[in-house]
Amino acid sequence: MNIAVLGTGMVGQTIAGGLVRLGHSVVVGTRDPEATLARTETDGMGNPPFARWHAAHDGIALTTYADAAAGADLLVLAGNGGAALAMLTAAGEDNLAGKVLVDISNPLDFSAGFPPTLFVKDDDSLGEQIQAAFPRTRVVKSLNTLTAALMVDPGLLDEATTVFVSGDDAAAKATVTEILTGFGHQDVIDLGGIETARGTEMLLPLWLRTMGALGTGMFNIKVVR
Amino acid sequence: MNIAVLGTGMVGQTIAGGLVRLGHSVVVGTRDPEATLARTETDGMGNPPFARWHAAHDGIALTTYADAAAGADLLVLAGNGGAALAMLTAAGEDNLAGKVLVDISNPLDFSAGFPPTLFVKDDDSLGEQIQAAFPRTRVVKSLNTLTAALMVDPGLLDEATTVFVSGDDAAAKATVTEILTGFGHQDVIDLGGIETARGTEMLLPLWLRTMGALGTGMFNIKVVR
Repeated sequence: MNIAVLGTGMVGQTIAGGLVRLGHSVVVGTRDPEATLARTETDGMGNPPFARWHAAHDGIALTTYADAAAGADLLVLAGNGGAALAMLTAAGEDNLAGKVLVDISNPLDFSAGFPPTLFVKDDDSLGEQIQAAFPRTRVVKSLNTLTAALMVDPGLLDEATTVFVSGDDAAAKATVTEILTGFGHQDVIDLGGIETARGTEMLLPLWLRTMGALGTGMFNIKVVR
Repeated sequence: MNIAVLGTGMVGQTIAGGLVRLGHSVVVGTRDPEATLARTETDGMGNPPFARWHAAHDGIALTTYADAAAGADLLVLAGNGGAALAMLTAAGEDNLAGKVLVDISNPLDFSAGFPPTLFVKDDDSLGEQIQAAFPRTRVVKSLNTLTAALMVDPGLLDEATTVFVSGDDAAAKATVTEILTGFGHQDVIDLGGIETARGTEMLLPLWLRTMGALGTGMFNIKVVR
């Protein structure tokens, strides 16, 4: 499949690399490709600049959000939740129409420091806001409940764990589930419509505090039943 | 230990029964014992009236919140989250002073129907509100992340799962962890201070939607790491 990953941070890099390993043709979208490649500083989390990762992955083109979206069959929104709607607007509603968009972002608000709060929650969700803003796009919320390395390689844990899908389009969820299975996820729970993204987005506060208690983000939940 | 369970609903009954099986001396507290015993109708969830359960558990006395609290070494708040502060006020601040209070309630707001939202979240929690209102009480938030039957008997699932404790008093958390271990919980994660109750309370929206997807509440999460 031709897949566009929107977002050049650590999550975008990890997802893009994982999709290439599954045999997909992957393009990474960014606001300004030249500016992204010119950056030499590490990000706020200490990750190396995109250019260094990109040099080691020369099969993956870097282009604008709009060009990436125009050529893609499926998109992954791997940006900062606060920038999600602006990134998709830049990608262009027509370029997104009819396509599956996997929203792996979280509505994190760091304005009051760490741990962040959620800028939308409980009676709405970022997944729903994206679906409402781009009604012709087939939004599937998934993978926002675990750290990037485990999104694409859950076998790094000794035991199979759980991921979730939320969305209004059953065929889109089936497509996403196939990708998840390709990554190695053995337990994918379909929560229902996109409004069930409220559930997975609201896991983040517990995820953050569990990371604090364990001293690592290399964990995931398994729904035992 | 002398334990008071505040709340006569299905959760209170299950917790009281579980604590008796561990060898504790248990009293159940309610607003008006005579009225509680006089009720003959099932509750909103179809559970039989308290009197029927009580007749089968005659070793467990029913008394007022205040009397239950006065005689207890440790209390379990097993009521409706919306009634939590009123129940504790009725129990009496002096009767609660210095004691461990296990808060297993959730701040559920059913006013807009099902699934409920949370009436406090993200920048505050019910656990914190209780600790702030009763500063001399040693509040430990726990067990609010799973269904009552599994709180006291996690072995009903084929696999060991995870429960959490949040609280400002390390000795109180150790006491509660001992009870949890007695129930059969093999993985108790100490999240930190009472403010980490924001995390476990905000799991509820995902818990409710997972219950919807699975068609059962007989599940629990395991933190795989």
